[in-house]
Amino acid sequence: MLFLGVPMIISMKLHSTQEEIDAVCDRIRHFGYKIHTIEGVERVVIAAIGVGDVTACIESLEAMPQVEKAVRISAPYKFVSKEYKEGRTRVRVNGLEIGGDQFIVMAGPCSVESEQQIMESAEAVAAAGGHILRGGAFKPRTSPYEFQGLEQEGLKLLRKAKERTGLAIITEVMSDRDVPLVAEYADILQIGARNMQNFSLLKQLGKAGRPIVLKRGLSSTIRELLMSAEYIVAHGNKDVILCERGIRTFETATRNTCDIVSIPLLQEMTHLPIILDPSHATGKRSLVPALSRAGVAIGADGLLMEVHPCPEKAYSDGAQSLHIPEFNQMMQSLKPYIEIWKQSRMTEGAVAV
Amino acid sequence: MLFLGVPMIISMKLHSTQEEIDAVCDRIRHFGYKIHTIEGVERVVIAAIGVGDVTACIESLEAMPQVEKAVRISAPYKFVSKEYKEGRTRVRVNGLEIGGDQFIVMAGPCSVESEQQIMESAEAVAAAGGHILRGGAFKPRTSPYEFQGLEQEGLKLLRKAKERTGLAIITEVMSDRDVPLVAEYADILQIGARNMQNFSLLKQLGKAGRPIVLKRGLSSTIRELLMSAEYIVAHGNKDVILCERGIRTFETATRNTCDIVSIPLLQEMTHLPIILDPSHATGKRSLVPALSRAGVAIGADGLLMEVHPCPEKAYSDGAQSLHIPEFNQMMQSLKPYIEIWKQSRMTEGAVAV
Amino acid sequence: MLFLGVPMIISMKLHSTQEEIDAVCDRIRHFGYKIHTIEGVERVVIAAIGVGDVTACIESLEAMPQVEKAVRISAPYKFVSKEYKEGRTRVRVNGLEIGGDQFIVMAGPCSVESEQQIMESAEAVAAAGGHILRGGAFKPRTSPYEFQGLEQEGLKLLRKAKERTGLAIITEVMSDRDVPLVAEYADILQIGARNMQNFSLLKQLGKAGRPIVLKRGLSSTIRELLMSAEYIVAHGNKDVILCERGIRTFETATRNTCDIVSIPLLQEMTHLPIILDPSHATGKRSLVPALSRAGVAIGADGLLMEVHPCPEKAYSDGAQSLHIPEFNQMMQSLKPYIEIWKQSRMTEGAVAV
Amino acid sequence: MLFLGVPMIISMKLHSTQEEIDAVCDRIRHFGYKIHTIEGVERVVIAAIGVGDVTACIESLEAMPQVEKAVRISAPYKFVSKEYKEGRTRVRVNGLEIGGDQFIVMAGPCSVESEQQIMESAEAVAAAGGHILRGGAFKPRTSPYEFQGLEQEGLKLLRKAKERTGLAIITEVMSDRDVPLVAEYADILQIGARNMQNFSLLKQLGKAGRPIVLKRGLSSTIRELLMSAEYIVAHGNKDVILCERGIRTFETATRNTCDIVSIPLLQEMTHLPIILDPSHATGKRSLVPALSRAGVAIGADGLLMEVHPCPEKAYSDGAQSLHIPEFNQMMQSLKPYIEIWKQSRMTEGAVAV
Repeated sequence: MLFLGVPMIISMKLHSTQEEIDAVCDRIRHFGYKIHTIEGVERVVIAAIGVGDVTACIESLEAMPQVEKAVRISAPYKFVSKEYKEGRTRVRVNGLEIGGDQFIVMAGPCSVESEQQIMESAEAVAAAGGHILRGGAFKPRTSPYEFQGLEQEGLKLLRKAKERTGLAIITEVMSDRDVPLVAEYADILQIGARNMQNFSLLKQLGKAGRPIVLKRGLSSTIRELLMSAEYIVAHGNKDVILCERGIRTFETATRNTCDIVSIPLLQEMTHLPIILDPSHATGKRSLVPALSRAGVAIGADGLLMEVHPCPEKAYSDGAQSLHIPEFNQMMQSLKPYIEIWKQSRMTEGAVAV
Repeated sequence: MLFLGVPMIISMKLHSTQEEIDAVCDRIRHFGYKIHTIEGVERVVIAAIGVGDVTACIESLEAMPQVEKAVRISAPYKFVSKEYKEGRTRVRVNGLEIGGDQFIVMAGPCSVESEQQIMESAEAVAAAGGHILRGGAFKPRTSPYEFQGLEQEGLKLLRKAKERTGLAIITEVMSDRDVPLVAEYADILQIGARNMQNFSLLKQLGKAGRPIVLKRGLSSTIRELLMSAEYIVAHGNKDVILCERGIRTFETATRNTCDIVSIPLLQEMTHLPIILDPSHATGKRSLVPALSRAGVAIGADGLLMEVHPCPEKAYSDGAQSLHIPEFNQMMQSLKPYIEIWKQSRMTEGAVAV
Repeated sequence: MLFLGVPMIISMKLHSTQEEIDAVCDRIRHFGYKIHTIEGVERVVIAAIGVGDVTACIESLEAMPQVEKAVRISAPYKFVSKEYKEGRTRVRVNGLEIGGDQFIVMAGPCSVESEQQIMESAEAVAAAGGHILRGGAFKPRTSPYEFQGLEQEGLKLLRKAKERTGLAIITEVMSDRDVPLVAEYADILQIGARNMQNFSLLKQLGKAGRPIVLKRGLSSTIRELLMSAEYIVAHGNKDVILCERGIRTFETATRNTCDIVSIPLLQEMTHLPIILDPSHATGKRSLVPALSRAGVAIGADGLLMEVHPCPEKAYSDGAQSLHIPEFNQMMQSLKPYIEIWKQSRMTEGAVAV
Repeated sequence: MLFLGVPMIISMKLHSTQEEIDAVCDRIRHFGYKIHTIEGVERVVIAAIGVGDVTACIESLEAMPQVEKAVRISAPYKFVSKEYKEGRTRVRVNGLEIGGDQFIVMAGPCSVESEQQIMESAEAVAAAGGHILRGGAFKPRTSPYEFQGLEQEGLKLLRKAKERTGLAIITEVMSDRDVPLVAEYADILQIGARNMQNFSLLKQLGKAGRPIVLKRGLSSTIRELLMSAEYIVAHGNKDVILCERGIRTFETATRNTCDIVSIPLLQEMTHLPIILDPSHATGKRSLVPALSRAGVAIGADGLLMEVHPCPEKAYSDGAQSLHIPEFNQMMQSLKPYIEIWKQSRMTEGAVAV
């Protein structure tokens, strides 16, 4: 029973005949709903009650000439909604809990470029108190002439960095074909913004056996982000972590526009953890620390950010990668905010019990 | 000397003839610039050097068939830029300093509706530690059938609330014609998002004799916001406070999309104070406290928000107005963040000395 | 009786108590509506029936904690809607009918710059078969350092051009204060995109005694454009012509993004005439003829475009202004499209009779 | 030699030291460019000359603290640009030429649903003068609970429809894994908007041996669309057809906002054919005929649209699918526009010879 309550409201055009109203009601019943009509002075409104395929039904109704508007009332997702599960989902990986009482920092270079580069990065992340190492082995690049990643060689270097530092590994997977390979090396699979609606990939992730960080698409609504998460959960994998990384708007002064309010809003809608990527959200190194502070203060479960031993020589995303000393300083400056964050989570836990 | 350095770079089309290049150079010189040409293998690029009307010159050049692209390099504003004035502008009003060492909270109802309503609001704002009372007497409403404000009667009630509580008053002015009237009653004039590029109004504000809160337009870039501030300063009023209140994007789950990163970015570009309006940025009461915390953490100079004794009965913006007890609770929860904010401002001050 | 039928649907949160439902119903009745409740398996939905202030009521309801969603069903405008008036509004000016059986071309320079410039432009527009001369005397400019227009001097030159060529005059008004002055000289008042929601100005236009061309705001929805038109009509002036001139999106390859589909969509919603501004919609001269053809083909009532005797020397909008020979050529190339357009209008007229 | 001329301009911050300027110049040379410096009164600007990896170089430079701005001047694509190939690319398929002297209509249902449905559709398309049959076998759906397509069974039905009517077949492929299978059945492979930047898929298409229709992403710029086309061509397949299908903006009155001006703009930038999808661009059946007329008038190479024997019962996109009689009527009404289109292409051909 997926959709209960009143999933749809249908408003008829002015002066519809009884025959037209009956035709609409018949179609709604055909999709398995009960109906309830409300007659205004000039216009009739129909409510659909029960369970069915809302999208198909709405599209079908909007194709009927006498229907003015068909509006979805209940949410079209189930497993990821607060109504399905109370409390927070805690994703466990490598002894950590994402979505729990610990604020998680995932950091590292955009791309794995060499053994030396990833080892230096990993050690810096670990030394500064970071929890998870990021690094791309398969790189989505706008141009075919740009660096496309070290692929399996990069995965092996990440594994080596994990052995050295104990940090868990997060890395991107770009094709359904590569899911088993990447899942063999990584602790968390990252889905990039441009693949948030790669439905073939989402289905495969259901069987990946690894937690997923699902980045919001450049022009994806919050509802679409939840629908993509629903895909993964519905195909068998309940460990999904959402990631706000900025959306595309008319403003070009920053690489993207960080929709930071999506974090508390998603927390009202879903039990899944939500992290913030301040690097892609700004595209500019100097803005990353300030946005990171705001991310802690607004209640995100963690950060995913870019740090590089030498951003000037990075193959990609140099402008938004922190230098290691900047990363250290930022981690220091986050401490008092994380203190308040922890108290707030503990209070919430106490209330819940 | 407004624009120094290299304000423009002009790229010629492939295989332009010398004659065509000369014609472009002549036009650039006509606008008062010196020129410098750079010859690539296939393409010639020209740099303009000096001082002139950049916009007119670029538009003129783009109208020439052999010009591929004309790019602005230096910023087109002067008085509001960091390069013009170091440090922060501190706007003084009613014994307060906005842009200084105090985090400022401006709060109150969307509209002034009655004496009782505004007095209750003012007393609640003062009691909770707020600094300035907001309330609209002239209301910009999308529909002609909606409440348009009490006008001068509303201004008088605001004045009365000031006398009772000692709070300074901020209220909106919508027409150049009303500037003298509103300036007679208010301590700060507020310019709404829809009037950010009402240039007749901006010019008049130059002579208003009151500080201005200039809200960012729904689809205005950060550069346009600074240009509108430049209008006010260039016409004689240097006390301008910028306000981020969310921009319009494809996302409809919130009323607007809060571009919170504009705050640290503007701080890199201008010396003017910047405040955040978490009410319009979200449109939803439950999200206001979380965004307010983020606003403090990211380094805004203050907040401008809606609070109402009975939001359910408000004539406008009820859904985003806090109840008084919610406002009190939020003010409490902001305290530890404001503590950190103050330390950071004091450190910065010490460094500056 | 402004809003008939079922203006609002209110969906309660899951598991609302009867007491909570009653409270919501009471509030709806307080705004003058009758109510009708629909009980689903888990959720109750309430329909409001009758006439009232929809916006205030919806905002009030959304401020109540147990309301999940309040959705507007009927349109919030009246006079401009097709339901209010059948057929097309024909705006008569200087012997022309806009919205009738003639495709109208309004053309001229962005700004009036000198007597010679406006006379040359006017003669070229008349010679090519244009109907109305455009030219700005009051100029909205992003920067205070750009040319602001010749003001009253410009209006006088436009009047002179009318005397010489017989063309009607359209020019922009930017402030409610200037409406009487501009109305004295111009046949049509133009409201720029940045003033579409300058409500003080809109109210004044109700008494202008001249037809209005209302340009769509940079980030205004179609519904907001109709609401702004409703302001003017509700304040006494029924001669409003809508103008699509492109909206602001993430795409920067053109100055704006032309939402050309707004034209047939508006024709389904309103009886007002709709014209297209291909100059601002593209920002690039070479694209203007192609878009103009599309504008005729999609059924606009006319075009408003920029032509200049010497775009390279124009004070503003040079890059998007056509040279006079280009304008002549474009007018030629439009002819077969306008032929088809006329046949279609005549067929429609025949059907209507 | 990919990038000739002056691919980048770098502007230094005010008052940079000679040492800082030298460091930037060294880095630029490291990427294989020659440099040229221009010294303004207060600011130094550097031009890079030659051939190299522009993106990596720009990102690297922006990571240097003394760089104010690094601007790309030349386009980052090669094979798809007008500078690489003069004239129009004509894609040949099933005896047709797309991009040539024939205006091409591709039509059919959103999804293949049954043998009867696709046969009826195919016969209607053929009878009305359409050239190519569309129909989805693999469906990208926002929700996991919606119809996902008949997959290989659908491909077989499309093949059968081709045998019956002689129409060529276009159908969507969603995963790199499915490219060989879909290429076995279809004449043209369609890439949906959500996969425009699925780079694993784009690479695979380089070896598909079939022409590609590449739809513009919901929030993709024109430059990004060309970069994705460049991926396919650079990987071995030069038969790419671009498709404008609307972009995502703040406007919700239509499903997407049709950026119709992208068509003539792309024609200035590339030799590839460009078609228009009026169904997804509007989302509303009643608007499809008007937009189709505009598409012919603006100079598109063809249309890709949805038609269904019974839209009310369609599994997907019912609201935007034309009924067969509407499709017939639209095809009739396009005739005079296509006449003018053909004359214009023939004139252009004559000029070219």
